[in-house]
Amino acid sequence: MAHLDKIAVGIIGASGYGGVQLVRLLLEHPEVEIAYLGGDSSAGKKFTSLYPHLTHRVDLDIEKIDLDVVANRCKVVFLGLPNGLACNIAPTLIAKGCKVLDLSADYRFRDLDTYIAWYKKERADGETAKKAVYGLPELYRNQIEQSLLIGCPGCYPTATLLALSPLLKQGLIEPETVIIDAKSGTSGGGRQAKTNMLLAEADNSLGAYGVANHRHTPEIEQICSELVRQEVRVQFTPHLIPMVRGILSTVYATLRDPGLVRDDLITIYNAFYRSSSFVKILPNGIYPQTKWACGTNLCYIGIEVDPRTGRVIVMSAIDNLIKGQAGQAVQCMNLMMGWDEALGLPQLSFYP
Amino acid sequence: MAHLDKIAVGIIGASGYGGVQLVRLLLEHPEVEIAYLGGDSSAGKKFTSLYPHLTHRVDLDIEKIDLDVVANRCKVVFLGLPNGLACNIAPTLIAKGCKVLDLSADYRFRDLDTYIAWYKKERADGETAKKAVYGLPELYRNQIEQSLLIGCPGCYPTATLLALSPLLKQGLIEPETVIIDAKSGTSGGGRQAKTNMLLAEADNSLGAYGVANHRHTPEIEQICSELVRQEVRVQFTPHLIPMVRGILSTVYATLRDPGLVRDDLITIYNAFYRSSSFVKILPNGIYPQTKWACGTNLCYIGIEVDPRTGRVIVMSAIDNLIKGQAGQAVQCMNLMMGWDEALGLPQLSFYP
Amino acid sequence: MAHLDKIAVGIIGASGYGGVQLVRLLLEHPEVEIAYLGGDSSAGKKFTSLYPHLTHRVDLDIEKIDLDVVANRCKVVFLGLPNGLACNIAPTLIAKGCKVLDLSADYRFRDLDTYIAWYKKERADGETAKKAVYGLPELYRNQIEQSLLIGCPGCYPTATLLALSPLLKQGLIEPETVIIDAKSGTSGGGRQAKTNMLLAEADNSLGAYGVANHRHTPEIEQICSELVRQEVRVQFTPHLIPMVRGILSTVYATLRDPGLVRDDLITIYNAFYRSSSFVKILPNGIYPQTKWACGTNLCYIGIEVDPRTGRVIVMSAIDNLIKGQAGQAVQCMNLMMGWDEALGLPQLSFYP
Amino acid sequence: MAHLDKIAVGIIGASGYGGVQLVRLLLEHPEVEIAYLGGDSSAGKKFTSLYPHLTHRVDLDIEKIDLDVVANRCKVVFLGLPNGLACNIAPTLIAKGCKVLDLSADYRFRDLDTYIAWYKKERADGETAKKAVYGLPELYRNQIEQSLLIGCPGCYPTATLLALSPLLKQGLIEPETVIIDAKSGTSGGGRQAKTNMLLAEADNSLGAYGVANHRHTPEIEQICSELVRQEVRVQFTPHLIPMVRGILSTVYATLRDPGLVRDDLITIYNAFYRSSSFVKILPNGIYPQTKWACGTNLCYIGIEVDPRTGRVIVMSAIDNLIKGQAGQAVQCMNLMMGWDEALGLPQLSFYP
Repeated sequence: MAHLDKIAVGIIGASGYGGVQLVRLLLEHPEVEIAYLGGDSSAGKKFTSLYPHLTHRVDLDIEKIDLDVVANRCKVVFLGLPNGLACNIAPTLIAKGCKVLDLSADYRFRDLDTYIAWYKKERADGETAKKAVYGLPELYRNQIEQSLLIGCPGCYPTATLLALSPLLKQGLIEPETVIIDAKSGTSGGGRQAKTNMLLAEADNSLGAYGVANHRHTPEIEQICSELVRQEVRVQFTPHLIPMVRGILSTVYATLRDPGLVRDDLITIYNAFYRSSSFVKILPNGIYPQTKWACGTNLCYIGIEVDPRTGRVIVMSAIDNLIKGQAGQAVQCMNLMMGWDEALGLPQLSFYP
Repeated sequence: MAHLDKIAVGIIGASGYGGVQLVRLLLEHPEVEIAYLGGDSSAGKKFTSLYPHLTHRVDLDIEKIDLDVVANRCKVVFLGLPNGLACNIAPTLIAKGCKVLDLSADYRFRDLDTYIAWYKKERADGETAKKAVYGLPELYRNQIEQSLLIGCPGCYPTATLLALSPLLKQGLIEPETVIIDAKSGTSGGGRQAKTNMLLAEADNSLGAYGVANHRHTPEIEQICSELVRQEVRVQFTPHLIPMVRGILSTVYATLRDPGLVRDDLITIYNAFYRSSSFVKILPNGIYPQTKWACGTNLCYIGIEVDPRTGRVIVMSAIDNLIKGQAGQAVQCMNLMMGWDEALGLPQLSFYP
Repeated sequence: MAHLDKIAVGIIGASGYGGVQLVRLLLEHPEVEIAYLGGDSSAGKKFTSLYPHLTHRVDLDIEKIDLDVVANRCKVVFLGLPNGLACNIAPTLIAKGCKVLDLSADYRFRDLDTYIAWYKKERADGETAKKAVYGLPELYRNQIEQSLLIGCPGCYPTATLLALSPLLKQGLIEPETVIIDAKSGTSGGGRQAKTNMLLAEADNSLGAYGVANHRHTPEIEQICSELVRQEVRVQFTPHLIPMVRGILSTVYATLRDPGLVRDDLITIYNAFYRSSSFVKILPNGIYPQTKWACGTNLCYIGIEVDPRTGRVIVMSAIDNLIKGQAGQAVQCMNLMMGWDEALGLPQLSFYP
Repeated sequence: MAHLDKIAVGIIGASGYGGVQLVRLLLEHPEVEIAYLGGDSSAGKKFTSLYPHLTHRVDLDIEKIDLDVVANRCKVVFLGLPNGLACNIAPTLIAKGCKVLDLSADYRFRDLDTYIAWYKKERADGETAKKAVYGLPELYRNQIEQSLLIGCPGCYPTATLLALSPLLKQGLIEPETVIIDAKSGTSGGGRQAKTNMLLAEADNSLGAYGVANHRHTPEIEQICSELVRQEVRVQFTPHLIPMVRGILSTVYATLRDPGLVRDDLITIYNAFYRSSSFVKILPNGIYPQTKWACGTNLCYIGIEVDPRTGRVIVMSAIDNLIKGQAGQAVQCMNLMMGWDEALGLPQLSFYP
């Protein structure tokens, strides 16, 4: 059934938003074919009973999870499971010869003690975890190309780290002054029905959550610390916004050199991301709208300097389900397979 | 604890949207005091653990449902339970001397066979049901004043019947041509978490549901039939709209007299509703926006005649949770208690 | 500068939503290149000063409208101007050898008297108008292939006619019973700033407009009349929905044969649209959500029969700016140029 | 016509959102009567031609602005004009014996040089301006009671200063570390039609604006500086949120005493606001949703301490058009007139 010249890929945990995004992107990817969709509670159902708009395009059932079947059928496997499950599955799949991209938090941490402290889960796959690469291509392109196991970044860390990396890497800011005020559409909460995610509750309203204790904090800190080669603690506050998709991360930090102006920083950012076609640095005085990135794998970045306070303010906008999740995973797959990094990934949003 | 001069009221099924609307309205009602909040799954919790914005105003727990306690403490009881439960509770409460207002479908039908056919529930309270009055004050004000048991109308029937009644009562339209295309905000679906009611699913989208088989159809037909003294069948199609509150019912019917013009009908409607202060007939060429009614017990009605087709188009807008639910229940209570019908009911929306 | 093997196309009236949708679609079309963007009030500005999210993709200025320049540079010209302007431009462009696709109402009517009566504009291009073809490929594919001038359908007529055509063409319904209750996102109102289109006014609200006199009525009637070879009058009521994109058209009609069931109609629709890859007939009991079509050139159709009333209810969902406007224009261009009808047109929405 | 026992009030600049909010609140205020509505571009129109939902409640025309007429008819005058106009009007009205409440920025600044620098307007009413009181009752209740001229605070400063004042007044934070990340619904932009405020543009999107140069910055700084008796510079970034009403201000600052915990701060805030019935301090771990405040004059405040970073995070939520504008003006009027501060002001939102 499979095209001889296409790579067979599978998705374990296909029923959620990560799953349907992957399905949508992989259907238009020229080099792959979806050979397996697996799930737990949805096993046995047609995929399109969950997503009827794909009725005329997808004719796959959601199968129960059998790693032998998966590995037999697929060269590349995406894991879209809740936190704490991928760490039981990935070692087996890799041993059986699959390349694995995990969308959960399980393989994002170099230091498993941090994972265990914030995610309250013990685990026994330390050797496998050591080989995992953090799947942010703009920072770790070379390692991703060589890797068999990718821990795909969280949505907030993706937007935030793309905003912060040039500043940290070039030593332009005081790391301890970093404050991240992030805003996300509600699709980031997944497809599980929760009262606070109902339209009747979440529409026409706005609030913060996870203040001072959101789990993306140590993930952001890990990469920041690596960039400046010292331990960094950041302030991170996420907010739920009455919209479906999109993240805006507004990042504040004190500049080390008060003489730096906006133009300097735009030049630095353009240079830093010159090989990263998905990152778009905006010209002077233009700030990103999340809608510009929706339906794409792009990250738009706007930069401002406040000479009155000596701070830089960086705003980054992504689609939380694409660059913040499934699209970035496909970008990593492209690199792992030796393909053009941008293959099959959308780069033009519909506006308005 | 209760003020000597205030009437004690209770709410069974207080945790949902009907419950919180009742609490909100009753808190500002000058003649009553909330003496009891009851629930099943939420029993034992503070009411404000479900609705923290009322922390500084309400200090009641949700108690488990004990009809002796309720009847002992309250003169008036509102039932905000799922369909099929009130019919087991109302007879006892009435026997113990309470006045009862049921927000479910249980006491809306004169003909219990219709109820049983559409709601798939047997029941044994036929004698009680016979005494129930359909709680639409604009049509049944006198009966409500005399009643001990009110079956409060559904949200769609409220908007639709207020739009249709003058036409039917005056014999101005062909009853079999009535088509009702109704649109509701998602709060009509209640507070239970369902996937299709998530903001991520329902926002920026629109669709019909219950086409040709929604349970509000026989409820609308029952009252229409009574108004014209013959059996009427209507076409009723509800749609889910990406907004929190509000219903717009767009009603189409063929005029018997093709010479009738819009001005005639506006005059007829104004006369029909001259004693109904909550119904606002709009002047020539103005059509209602649901937002105008939000946060109020009002119903706005706009009327248009199409001389090309001989049809009348009537549009009615209400707040589905107030005039379509809790506000109308309070309006009925006011009538049952001999108070001014409008007591404690909001009549001015916030715009925008 | 132009690729030798690409067809040069131009857009006159590029600054509005029709314009930016065309730009977006044409940028990803494999056979064309945008060679000209023209406008009036925006002439002299960079296109991306209006749409900064395209900064890294489009480097064209909006030029003032000079038909010699346009015709010299472009083989195909899209007109995205307000009603009443294209009729002054199209004859010249055609005389100079361009193929023309007009997004306004100017070339939608065979009978110019109807146009003049509803649009209140005199015009002197009757000979040109006679040669125009109504750009609904699912009905007029052959004529479009042969034409030099396309009057692209309105957004509501597109959704409505796709819902109605099989019923009318097969003589299955009483034409005079047709009622169309249509709902549109606010982008249909264009990019001109109007108070009633502000988010603060239009969000969380819903209302009808143009009741009994919307200009899309005669456009729908013209095609319906042609399909049944008799004059048809329909009832058409549009509503403004608090969302950006999407149209749902809910169509009611009385069946001539009361024995027809839903399955019969689904079979008939599938047969009618078997060569129309953009029309997706939904299986039994599934009704379309507008979101399924957003960002695509698809039209989803759901069908229901009500045996109690003898009516059929058909619901069709499109993206008003793509299948309802710019995408359909590109679809027509593909036919005029002898390309695959679906070339460069998106067929997979992002969900949610 | 006026009730003998009611105070006559007027609104100059009645056609915008500030105007309609004032009308709505004053209609339900027990001690006043609206005796005058004035405007410029709308002069001569019925007020309800702009706001048809009030057709059955308001029968006033918008009159052209004649200060003799206004002063003759009204004891209290609200000014709802664009910045830079009230300073030409207020001195005359006060000289004629009116009490004046200005909703624009004209009378918010003690130091007119700051006003002139940020608002780019010269003015000649320095003597009048000196007597104006900043209309934030929670801080300046006594002065407001004695004043004839109130400069009503901006919407962002209201939310922000209520969040910050206890910290600054008690010397608990380092003032120069204050970062304010604020989010507002689009009604804050007023009723003038602007492209970026269209639902089609602003819905399902999110972005910052006025970064490092928004005019509410010096207004916030003026009051902060007064509270700590030293010059303070704050970082203030507003964002536009896809919703109609509501502001959330998320405020970050470094605590001077790292041993302070959340409970301490909640105690301090409750003490600070013990006489301010509109300010609601939330219990441990509860963060405000803007929706809780919508349609009320309340301000909800949630507090969190991050022991990892030594920072306090305070979140405050208001309705930008009520506590952030018209409601606060009415609250000030109540104080000026010697009435109960809360008279006629809504304190219970509709939820959801």
